[in-house]
Amino acid sequence: MGQASIGLVSRTDSAEALNIANTILRYLHEKGVKWCVEKETANVLKLHEKAVPLNEMDADVIVVIGGDGTLLRAFKNIPKASRPILGIRVGRSGFLSDIMPENALQAIEEVLKGNYQVEVRARLRVTVNDKVTDALNEALITSSRPAKVIGVKVLTDNTLIFEGWLDGVIFATTTGATGYALSANGPVVDPDLDVIVMVPINPLNLSLRPFVISINKRLSLKLVEPSPPANIIVDGYSFLNVGVKETVNIFKSPQPATFLRLHAYRRDFYEKLREIRMRMT
Amino acid sequence: MGQASIGLVSRTDSAEALNIANTILRYLHEKGVKWCVEKETANVLKLHEKAVPLNEMDADVIVVIGGDGTLLRAFKNIPKASRPILGIRVGRSGFLSDIMPENALQAIEEVLKGNYQVEVRARLRVTVNDKVTDALNEALITSSRPAKVIGVKVLTDNTLIFEGWLDGVIFATTTGATGYALSANGPVVDPDLDVIVMVPINPLNLSLRPFVISINKRLSLKLVEPSPPANIIVDGYSFLNVGVKETVNIFKSPQPATFLRLHAYRRDFYEKLREIRMRMT
Amino acid sequence: MGQASIGLVSRTDSAEALNIANTILRYLHEKGVKWCVEKETANVLKLHEKAVPLNEMDADVIVVIGGDGTLLRAFKNIPKASRPILGIRVGRSGFLSDIMPENALQAIEEVLKGNYQVEVRARLRVTVNDKVTDALNEALITSSRPAKVIGVKVLTDNTLIFEGWLDGVIFATTTGATGYALSANGPVVDPDLDVIVMVPINPLNLSLRPFVISINKRLSLKLVEPSPPANIIVDGYSFLNVGVKETVNIFKSPQPATFLRLHAYRRDFYEKLREIRMRMT
Amino acid sequence: MGQASIGLVSRTDSAEALNIANTILRYLHEKGVKWCVEKETANVLKLHEKAVPLNEMDADVIVVIGGDGTLLRAFKNIPKASRPILGIRVGRSGFLSDIMPENALQAIEEVLKGNYQVEVRARLRVTVNDKVTDALNEALITSSRPAKVIGVKVLTDNTLIFEGWLDGVIFATTTGATGYALSANGPVVDPDLDVIVMVPINPLNLSLRPFVISINKRLSLKLVEPSPPANIIVDGYSFLNVGVKETVNIFKSPQPATFLRLHAYRRDFYEKLREIRMRMT
Repeated sequence: MGQASIGLVSRTDSAEALNIANTILRYLHEKGVKWCVEKETANVLKLHEKAVPLNEMDADVIVVIGGDGTLLRAFKNIPKASRPILGIRVGRSGFLSDIMPENALQAIEEVLKGNYQVEVRARLRVTVNDKVTDALNEALITSSRPAKVIGVKVLTDNTLIFEGWLDGVIFATTTGATGYALSANGPVVDPDLDVIVMVPINPLNLSLRPFVISINKRLSLKLVEPSPPANIIVDGYSFLNVGVKETVNIFKSPQPATFLRLHAYRRDFYEKLREIRMRMT
Repeated sequence: MGQASIGLVSRTDSAEALNIANTILRYLHEKGVKWCVEKETANVLKLHEKAVPLNEMDADVIVVIGGDGTLLRAFKNIPKASRPILGIRVGRSGFLSDIMPENALQAIEEVLKGNYQVEVRARLRVTVNDKVTDALNEALITSSRPAKVIGVKVLTDNTLIFEGWLDGVIFATTTGATGYALSANGPVVDPDLDVIVMVPINPLNLSLRPFVISINKRLSLKLVEPSPPANIIVDGYSFLNVGVKETVNIFKSPQPATFLRLHAYRRDFYEKLREIRMRMT
Repeated sequence: MGQASIGLVSRTDSAEALNIANTILRYLHEKGVKWCVEKETANVLKLHEKAVPLNEMDADVIVVIGGDGTLLRAFKNIPKASRPILGIRVGRSGFLSDIMPENALQAIEEVLKGNYQVEVRARLRVTVNDKVTDALNEALITSSRPAKVIGVKVLTDNTLIFEGWLDGVIFATTTGATGYALSANGPVVDPDLDVIVMVPINPLNLSLRPFVISINKRLSLKLVEPSPPANIIVDGYSFLNVGVKETVNIFKSPQPATFLRLHAYRRDFYEKLREIRMRMT
Repeated sequence: MGQASIGLVSRTDSAEALNIANTILRYLHEKGVKWCVEKETANVLKLHEKAVPLNEMDADVIVVIGGDGTLLRAFKNIPKASRPILGIRVGRSGFLSDIMPENALQAIEEVLKGNYQVEVRARLRVTVNDKVTDALNEALITSSRPAKVIGVKVLTDNTLIFEGWLDGVIFATTTGATGYALSANGPVVDPDLDVIVMVPINPLNLSLRPFVISINKRLSLKLVEPSPPANIIVDGYSFLNVGVKETVNIFKSPQPATFLRLHAYRRDFYEKLREIRMRMT
């Protein structure tokens, strides 16, 4: 791609993340690489002349400095013809980012040389009427009233998968299976599989279990009378509210997420999983 | 007690419940028994001259017609020197009420003859600063922001029981163990035991399990930085919000709940449990 | 296939199954269809001249009358170039058989007319040294000593998936995910997916969860010192014992199972699942 | 008690344990304390003249060097008028022993001075016909045939608690709740409570949950037709086999276990629990 141009996004509430950002930008400047910075990050770094809103960033590679939360937020806002992302991990939870802070500069160097692989991860498209969004980790449909269960039906085509009263339902991608779905008793899913993990949360029906479903199925969820309305939360952010007349559709998004992976810094999935399983708080 | 006076509360959204209420009141009138009706119920039944607010009801026995929700609401509002309650079950969930609609009149007759036992069930007192309430089923401390975990520490005296990040924590009585706590993977607790069932909901720490603790222990819960604020929900109703500076105290209430039990209509606990476990939605 | 020839196997401890067998055989005889009977079944039905050992049965279609246990046993013994099976359900558990006894004759009629689909279900090959077997539902590796945990490592290629001390590990197919794996807290798997469900049973490590893995991965399990020896149980039957020096290999079998499915009697997967989830004993 | 006499039992497969044993015995000898050694331990230490079978040991205090397994074995064999036990922890699992190896001598010194508390822990008595044993951790009733479920009914007095088909049932004391029962999804139980934790293992009925029952209830378990026979395993050791005609009774033993606790070395229960929850294999 000639020499790649770089866009940069960082957590703005972490001195460590901002330091790494500065170091990288200085390096890019010295090397004469074309770069720009996401607006909010640029504000904090006082680089106003380089500021670009995330959804207009026209860089070949986007570098995200932060934890999984920062990465999920970046993916929400990157324009549709989505750019590959390189994650540099600063923060407690970093399943999506393989690069540790101490390797940040070498990683950028490898990327500029073109020494990387592109990894494509499926996202779930969530639609309600004409509203559309994509989930990299999960969509959560949850009661809008604390401690009041919602009543739901989940179907694929015209087949009922289950019906029940519960706190909520998680629809996770393979990528998201190690996140909220795992805390809610979902299984671990090997990254080579492309599936939907559907987890009923605290169901009245004690015999309900998590479901693993082909990502090629189209799922729909409806609330049943007299359910209170529900919130849809996508990758941790509120998407919209639905009532008993509406249908939530969930299916494989035509726009997957793409990550840059560097051979030298690749961390094994099951190794990262053991880290998660070790955390005590 | 001479002849007992009767106070009556009913669901107002169920024709069946209101019918039973009318039948009972006609019977009490014919027998010359002293009675009064809770205000909202009285409104719907057009018995304004008999209306008394629940918290001023000075009857010897209070008859509650409805499901567990109606009963829990009644207990919230009954004055402190609490009256014994007779539950008549109308509705889906009726763990707390043994009397089925078809036996309502005979049950009232037995009560007037004094043929009953009194069953005392412990409640949990929940205090924050100078705010106080009692839980018959459970107190739930839950994140005030959907899909954002809270960080909590739970202690007894100065001993840490656990610390973790999670969706919420349930503190259930033995009575409440068959309710929300059971859906959240808590154990079944024999009604002869008096305990606190503490259930961490969807913890990041995958090795956390439900806890069963003596009801004589005083528990306290604190949020830890940088936790978002939490809501406290008691028996399904919002109690108040807490932030990281406040302490929630949970301990055995000096004011238990008292139920009237009639030998002839007594339903076995494990039989009722099998009913719950059979429900498919 | 011209007119199909039929082989028949039945439970021999159920009068209902044997009655159905007789009815079917009389029908085949009247229609002039070529048929034979598995040896043990033939003994009980006193049809010695038609008896053929299961592993020599050269019929186009094999009809199995019984529950899942009978079917699993039939599949164990059918010769390698495996024949399609039509299951007729007699018994409590019948996830694998769609045909109810009252439809048995019509089903046979449809089969003879060629009105059926063939459904192919993956099996797992289990090898230890030069010993080989195939699992339609699951392979269980379990301690040979009651109440003594075994220590295991599970790898794929050279990657460690997990290591732990536990009662056993289940490796289930998609087909078997509704069986033992489900009781041991495994997820429900949509029949359109082809996966391995691996469930650690009662692990000392409380943070272990069930795993869902692509069926194209080759898994291996080794016992670690000082583990007691383990039994390998395949589809409910003892396969062999292993010690700490041996390796158990698990991967997709080149010989899948094939079922005949009849459009008219097809039962929906999620409907059958709800039946399982309703059972109270 | 004047000066206490000491009996000593040690793991014989651990050089560390045997070293500690020697150090303690040398110390007791120097101090002129009366002591004896359990027979198998004495054999290994070549102290034949001091050897006494465990069930004839007439010492005031019994010192057990090893992990929970060694302690459980000691308790099985100590005579009925049971002596208090001081556990010195050598080995991976040591919930029952508070004393670490480096504190062994000081602990003995405190005991000789009488500076200790006695802690009484309930045991469960298990009887079948005229056979009797006591469980400090748990009694497990499990299928005698690998991968074949047993059918059981559990009753208290004449009330059915549950009926089901499953791999087994654990009846744990409060002490044992952190052991096998916890791995099988049982709750954590505060040591101040005296209960029976009953855990159904891998039940066909997916809505079964662990039970917590007053230790004052008398439980009985019967196998139901056509169940295979079951093994009863008590504290990890085979007790006996039962068939469908027999009844297993479980209730609070009149002979509790007694532990010596030293204030200075006391480890908090929830702290020890966190250690267990940290273990990764």
